[in-house]
Amino acid sequence: FIRMMKQSKQFVLFFTFRGIVASILVFLCFGVTQAKDGPFSRPHPAYWRFWLCVSVVYELFLIFILFQTVQDGRQFMKYIDPHLGVPLPERDYGGNCLIYDHGNETDPFHNIWDKLDGFVPAHFFGWYLKTLMIRDWWMCMIISVMFEFLEYSLEHQLPNFSECWWDHWIMDVILCNGLGIYCGMKTLSWLSLKTYKWQGLWNIPTYKGKMKRIVFQFTPYSWVKFEWKPASSLRRWLAVCGIIFVFLLAELNTFYLKFVLWMPPEHYLVLLRLVFFVNVGGVAMREIYDFMDDPKFHKKLGQQAWLVAAITATEFLIVVKYDPYTLTLSLPFYITQCWILGIILVLTWTAWRFFIRDITLRYKEIRRQKQEHKYERDKCLSNGDGHSAILDEQSGNKLRERKL
Amino acid sequence: FIRMMKQSKQFVLFFTFRGIVASILVFLCFGVTQAKDGPFSRPHPAYWRFWLCVSVVYELFLIFILFQTVQDGRQFMKYIDPHLGVPLPERDYGGNCLIYDHGNETDPFHNIWDKLDGFVPAHFFGWYLKTLMIRDWWMCMIISVMFEFLEYSLEHQLPNFSECWWDHWIMDVILCNGLGIYCGMKTLSWLSLKTYKWQGLWNIPTYKGKMKRIVFQFTPYSWVKFEWKPASSLRRWLAVCGIIFVFLLAELNTFYLKFVLWMPPEHYLVLLRLVFFVNVGGVAMREIYDFMDDPKFHKKLGQQAWLVAAITATEFLIVVKYDPYTLTLSLPFYITQCWILGIILVLTWTAWRFFIRDITLRYKEIRRQKQEHKYERDKCLSNGDGHSAILDEQSGNKLRERKL
Repeated sequence: FIRMMKQSKQFVLFFTFRGIVASILVFLCFGVTQAKDGPFSRPHPAYWRFWLCVSVVYELFLIFILFQTVQDGRQFMKYIDPHLGVPLPERDYGGNCLIYDHGNETDPFHNIWDKLDGFVPAHFFGWYLKTLMIRDWWMCMIISVMFEFLEYSLEHQLPNFSECWWDHWIMDVILCNGLGIYCGMKTLSWLSLKTYKWQGLWNIPTYKGKMKRIVFQFTPYSWVKFEWKPASSLRRWLAVCGIIFVFLLAELNTFYLKFVLWMPPEHYLVLLRLVFFVNVGGVAMREIYDFMDDPKFHKKLGQQAWLVAAITATEFLIVVKYDPYTLTLSLPFYITQCWILGIILVLTWTAWRFFIRDITLRYKEIRRQKQEHKYERDKCLSNGDGHSAILDEQSGNKLRERKL
Repeated sequence: FIRMMKQSKQFVLFFTFRGIVASILVFLCFGVTQAKDGPFSRPHPAYWRFWLCVSVVYELFLIFILFQTVQDGRQFMKYIDPHLGVPLPERDYGGNCLIYDHGNETDPFHNIWDKLDGFVPAHFFGWYLKTLMIRDWWMCMIISVMFEFLEYSLEHQLPNFSECWWDHWIMDVILCNGLGIYCGMKTLSWLSLKTYKWQGLWNIPTYKGKMKRIVFQFTPYSWVKFEWKPASSLRRWLAVCGIIFVFLLAELNTFYLKFVLWMPPEHYLVLLRLVFFVNVGGVAMREIYDFMDDPKFHKKLGQQAWLVAAITATEFLIVVKYDPYTLTLSLPFYITQCWILGIILVLTWTAWRFFIRDITLRYKEIRRQKQEHKYERDKCLSNGDGHSAILDEQSGNKLRERKL
């Protein structure tokens, strides 16, 4: 009887699954042809409409997972891949951090070779793409370094954050990320210097020219150089801080989501999620930049930026719901101290740059003006004129107005 | 054990249901704020974005139902309303058609009073709204009459299509529909004569003026009078035929869908579907008109029009899948004859109007020109000139060119 029940359940599930897949395909067909266009138009606007629709589907999937019980949600992954929904094996991380291991005579550098796995090109390539997204050397470096600090801070929660010191700083920050950012910046300067004159494929006479035109279809239609200028105004400073925060949160979600949904790190869904994020993140970043740089023309923040924010928030909520225990493991005391110090420094700088500095500047200007007036008055007095009192009163009025 | 199994199943279903509802709400939030705007802007563009999103959700729901087995699909309705998913009771229709019943002495007109149920105001109100949608007296009347013909033709498939002759023609076509169309046309002429000058609520001085402005927020921002002109070109003729066809198909779907999904006619979902169709149908009709009337400015058919077409098609496919037996009950012979006759008449008219008439008109013009030339030649000849042969040859060339 149980077997029959199971079979009939399987039978119903097959049709439910088929129905959901068909609905998603119909939604994608509708969206790819009819959705609102974003800022990018190469290789074709439909390509970006497709990713917009995928992000809607992904967000709805996340919402669905969020509203399941923890047990059901993990088992639900079985419908996507029957190998999922199984607890991950415990792994041993950290270990031997000696660069030159005297004990091992055949290959004393074996610790280094061990770390050179598939994640090295992944890090490099990832940061190359992230640089194309963010288009700013400083912001990339800050995010890259900040993430290593986060790994240090959270290695008591997720054991695969614990790495050797030289793995953190030399291999990750300098070699992989640094090289990726360098190559990204080189590509960016090529893209910003390139001439953007588009002509139809049929107007190009030579065969070689046609081929080149087809390849260039996959480069942007025109180029906007991002100049974030975080120190220029409070609005921009808060926006840049917000972007860095969301970026880091999305990076952490990658690891925590794998952990709470029992996804092995090498599963294709993890890779798909990253491909997805590269595509939608680029659009979102451009939309944020447009909104920040020219709020008169771009009156609303773009749709993709909203969706990326919603997806990051929903992923975080799933992590909170599925494993509140791991997430609330308290930080070691010295790490808390470091973070409090860092936050105080940032807040102090913000207060100084956008509030106190303005006041001191204004005060200095007032003093300068006062001195000028004094100088003039002295000159007047030495000329033995009666107008000096009136002049003094006028300048006093001016000062009062300025203070108001 | 079975009870436990059932309970755990119920438990899982509750969370699945909750997840789906949450996903739909998130989708609506995204769509209402971010979807592409349509042609209407009153009372607020968000209102029309909402209906656009509802139509996407409805279309996806229909696709899901389409991909279930017949058994599962009918039972699926139980999740929406536990009273659904039960076969409908057989009903007796038609019956006594005497207007004046001699047998019943207390109330000889009781047959008429029996028919005066809630469907009379529903018909009237429905046609009032349809007239606002279509905005053309002739098209409304044709659809209204055609639908009665369809009821006659299909009463062997759906018994609730069978009505008395006076119910068909006097109560439906003349009283309910006719009055609805008349009131609709009156409203349309008021809307087309109204002045469309909008000023902000805060610029209106009087309290009464403010109230009036708030009420007028629910009238259109500006008015487009539809002039379908079906006979003016083949494109417009085919478009009008297509609109009438889809309209009638959507009306038939109302009845067939109720029948195959076991929905009682008075269920609130049936009413909701009609409210939905009134909203999206109005937008779709305007988009079709814009596309037809000014294809240079409106290069693509609007999104809502595509969706309404997709929804009508999917509803029809559901009917075909769920009850192919009823749908293929062959028409009685005399009805087949009538339809063949009607189709032949329409095709003949189309051929005459857009192909043959043009040829005859061209032929007549050629003959007229020939005669003119002949007249000129005669005149030339009477003048005794030698140029006439050349003139004749020239006109012959012209005629040949025109024939090509």
